Order: sequence, then C-alpha cells, then structure tokens
Amino acid sequence: MSQEQNPPNLKDPKKLVEAMRAGNRMALARLISKVENRDADLAKLIADLYAHTGQAQVWGITGPPGAGKSTLVDRLAAQLRKAGKRVAIVAVDPSSPFTGGAILGDRIRMQSHTGDEGVYIRSLGTRGKHGGLSHATKEVVLVLDAAKFDVILVETAGVGQTELDILKLAQTVIVVLVPESGDSIQVMKAGLMEIADVFAVNKSDRPEADKMVRELTTMVGMIDHDEKTWLMPVHKTEAVRDVGVSELMESIRKHQDHLTVTGKRTEKARRFFKNEVLDILTEKLSQTVNSAFETSSGQELLSQLIERKTDPYEAAKIISHQ
Amino acid sequence: MSQEQNPPNLKDPKKLVEAMRAGNRMALARLISKVENRDADLAKLIADLYAHTGQAQVWGITGPPGAGKSTLVDRLAAQLRKAGKRVAIVAVDPSSPFTGGAILGDRIRMQSHTGDEGVYIRSLGTRGKHGGLSHATKEVVLVLDAAKFDVILVETAGVGQTELDILKLAQTVIVVLVPESGDSIQVMKAGLMEIADVFAVNKSDRPEADKMVRELTTMVGMIDHDEKTWLMPVHKTEAVRDVGVSELMESIRKHQDHLTVTGKRTEKARRFFKNEVLDILTEKLSQTVNSAFETSSGQELLSQLIERKTDPYEAAKIISHQ
Repeated sequence: MSQEQNPPNLKDPKKLVEAMRAGNRMALARLISKVENRDADLAKLIADLYAHTGQAQVWGITGPPGAGKSTLVDRLAAQLRKAGKRVAIVAVDPSSPFTGGAILGDRIRMQSHTGDEGVYIRSLGTRGKHGGLSHATKEVVLVLDAAKFDVILVETAGVGQTELDILKLAQTVIVVLVPESGDSIQVMKAGLMEIADVFAVNKSDRPEADKMVRELTTMVGMIDHDEKTWLMPVHKTEAVRDVGVSELMESIRKHQDHLTVTGKRTEKARRFFKNEVLDILTEKLSQTVNSAFETSSGQELLSQLIERKTDPYEAAKIISHQ
Repeated sequence: MSQEQNPPNLKDPKKLVEAMRAGNRMALARLISKVENRDADLAKLIADLYAHTGQAQVWGITGPPGAGKSTLVDRLAAQLRKAGKRVAIVAVDPSSPFTGGAILGDRIRMQSHTGDEGVYIRSLGTRGKHGGLSHATKEVVLVLDAAKFDVILVETAGVGQTELDILKLAQTVIVVLVPESGDSIQVMKAGLMEIADVFAVNKSDRPEADKMVRELTTMVGMIDHDEKTWLMPVHKTEAVRDVGVSELMESIRKHQDHLTVTGKRTEKARRFFKNEVLDILTEKLSQTVNSAFETSSGQELLSQLIERKTDPYEAAKIISHQ
C-alpha cells in the first residue's frame, strides 16, 4: 500500500467501496473477505458495486494438473503489466489434493510481483464452502472489476462441475494442455471443445507436442462453422521460457474483438446475469429451508419423513408454503 | 431377465413400480432412466417410491483415481452375493478424463456377474446434468432401495464437491487409498478424515503400504473420542488377489451396527431428508427462474442488468415476487 493512503473507514460499506475504488489495498482485501465469509451486509454491498462493473476483461485459464497453468498465468500477467494494464489473478482449486491440483505456486508467484500495485493475487480455497465456491468466485471477480483492474485472470485446476461454473464468468477461456494430457478424444470427452476459446499446448519442447497441436487443429477444423463462428486457435507455448506467450495474447485479443463485433459479449452477459440471479435465490432458499427445519414443525416433518409417513416432495410443498 | 416375467405395462407409473418391486429388470431400468432424464412425472413416482425405501444399506466407496476402487467394489459385491445379499452398484464419475477417473472397467466388470439376477450395475455419466448429478444419483439409489436390493454400493472417483454430496447418502464410506496417494497430510487436507468410516489401503503388496497404514492409524488415534465415537479401522487390501476383503467387510458390518446402536443412523437420515427437500426446491427454483427470464418482462430485466440500471439482488427480489 502506498504511503499517501489514509486508513479508510472500514466499518461504513459506502466508504469501504470508495476507498477500494480509489485503489486502497486494505479496503479491497476487506471487501473480498466479506464475500468469502458471506457477510450479512453483503447483498447491499454487492448491489452497490454492480454500477461500477462491466469494464474488466475476464479470462479463464484451465487445464489438467501439471500443465503449467500458474506459470502461464504469470507470463500473461507480466505481458499485461508491460502494456500498462492492471491485472488481478484469482486462483481457485475446488478439487482435492488427490487430483494433483494445487495452487502451491502462489506464494512464490506473488513474490515476482512484490511491490507492484498493478497486480493483485488471491487464492480461493475449497473447504467449508460447499456449493458456494463458484458463487463466491464470481463475486470476488465482481469486486476486482469494480476495483478497476483491467484484466482478471481466473485460474482453475481441472474441469469438474465447480470449475465449469466458474469458467462461465470468463469471456475468454484458455485451455492449457500438455502433450501428456492425453489425446484429443479425451479433450472432447472432457467437454473442453465446448468451453475453449484458445488452446495452449504448453511445455511444447516435449515430444508429442506437435502431434497434439495437429490433432487439436484437425478437431477445430471439423467444427461446422459460418462467418460468426469462432474457430479456436491452437498455440504452442513454453511458459517457463516465455515462448509463444505473445502469440497467445494476440489470439486472446482477437477473441475479445470477436465477442464485441458479433454481439456475443452481450449474450454472455445475459447468461451471466441469469445465473447470478439464480445463485442469489438458491443461496436464500438454502437458508430458508435450513431455518424451517429448525422449528418444531420442521422437526416433526423430519420425523414423518424418516417414518415414511410423508415423502420429500410433499415435505417440499409444505416447507415452501410456510 | 427371467423367462417367467410378463412384459410390464411401462406406461402406467403404478404398474411400473409394481413390476420393479417384483424384480422386473426392464421396469427397473425404465425407472432409472426416468430419474436420469428428469421426467415430468418424476415427482409423483419418487414420492410413491419413498414408502418402500429405507431398507437397503448404502455404502460409499471413494478414493483417488487408480486406487483400485472398481476391483474392490467387485470383490465386495462377490462376498455379498455369497452371503445371499442382492447387490446394486452405482458408479458415478463427475470428473473429467484428466483427473484420471474413468468407469472403464464397467463393461468388463459386468461380465463377471452376467446372468446373476442378484447384481445390478449402473454407471451415471456427467455431461448435460450440470449441478444435478448428485440429486439424480440419490434418486437412483432410492429406486434401487425400493427394488429391494440389500446393499447398494456407490462408487465415486475423487473427492470433489459433487462426490462429497453423493457420499452423503451413504451410511458407511470406505476410503480407498494406495501407498502412492500421498501422505496422511493430504488425506487430512482432502477432508477424507471427515467422511471416512473405514480406510482400505489397497495394492498393499507395494512398498510404503505399511508406512501409510501406520500414518493413518496414528491419525485416527489422535481423534478426540468418547464411547460414542467411531474410530475408523484401517485395512490392508489387495483387491486383485481378494486379500483383506473379508476383514474389510467385517469392519463395515461393525460400523453399520454402530450406527444403529448409537442412534447415528437416524441422525444421518435426518440430514439426508433435509438435503433432499432442499434439492427438490432448488431444482424447482431453477425452472421458475429460467421461465421468468423467458417472459418479456424477464427480458427487459436482463437488459436493465446489462446496462447496470439494476443489480442481480434487486432482480432476484423482482423475480421471486412474480
């Protein structure tokens, strides 16, 4: 934090947002914590933030564990900084240690940007946020958007359900693969063809890299397309040596232009807002149902369910009419 | 299917359930398909089924890819068959090919039980069921319970969010590890200590197996416990050679007794029904919100959201009061 900043009044939500918008790091961290903790006054805060959002580009980066996503994200961030852009990185790992995903590089990574006010890095954990991780991630991105970051890089490990939900908030999704990720059939099976906007075959010095690039290119070529179809470019990258990253950036830029020109940006925004409203109502529903079961009639209903005197569909009707 | 069975009247839900309860395989398959497809008449069907449920034991089997879960499940099924129990296996893989999870063994596995009316095997896929996989799985288990299977084995790959949701429906969770799964710290980080009722260190002929057993045993020993606490047994198994499976079975049996004696079975049932009611209402909410956005006022609301004239919290209020 720079020396000139006055300590913001962190109790007053309005002042907190103002301080964050003025670039105060403490205010930003506080707001993000509020999102993570699902604070009671969150709805009001987020509602107020929306007016300041919609300016940032959101890029999603996904791929199997060990593909070198973190290094690539770091390289992309460095290039964006060179171009004078303010960059935020959100690393999400909803999966277990067993799937190999781990945002271990975080502390190390952060060091390379130490003292750079134009970079903000935040990891989002997984435990204790059952079902709510994708929603919390979306709202963290929202806060960063309102905090005037130009590009927000959202990195997720793997492509499970939570990850797919999270990637929906990105306008451009970069799928990072390595030759060992398996063949293109697996890419199709994993549903990556549907979510990818740009492919990066990383660690491209390894054998089989060219084969993977060829296979992916062939698959992209087989897509039934017209003039409004985006055909995903396939890039070879070697993030550790900063090879191919500029070309990747160029493709991302082109994809962002494509979204604007074709009107797909608005389509994406519509989908995003639909999901956002649904998420808000789902969270509220969950609270309502839990409270209903705390009451004595709720407890009685549970007993009837266990004794099979009623069924959950009937119980759902009763609960929702209370 | 045995020759004596008459073709059931599959159009009439009541008859369909009757046929399934009488052991008709075609009726069973049809009912499960209805659950997978979220059929319109599902609520009525499921509601009617509940009266016939609550008899089956549900065992969850989870662990990292490559731990040999499928083989172990197969061995457990074989032992249960020897004891005269009817067994259903539900294999769920919500993760991508990249995490290594794959229910590829299914076809092969099924062959070893060909012609055995006492075994039913079903895989549940992942695509096209965003967010609904755990709910669908629960209802499939319900159908199998009503179909009078004594034990239902639910196998999931990995321990992501969807898997954890699915495991909640099991009374006994067996966590299968292999020496290479990593150390016990990872087991703790993955939240496996919270969900495991029995540990199986599989492929126990490998080096490091004893070390893993020791570590797990130490960790279990560190649990703060009283007479009502279940301390998870740690077993060495070699599923391919059928080694240690009887001992594992014995621990599962003891755990089932423990649930009854301590009243934890009822606690689990209460939690299950709470979640079930919430799932039903969440699914309904999702349909309501989607329909609301299809109307002209819904479309107008979306435009206002995109133009930041309103925010999703405000929109959620409007939608829920329509």
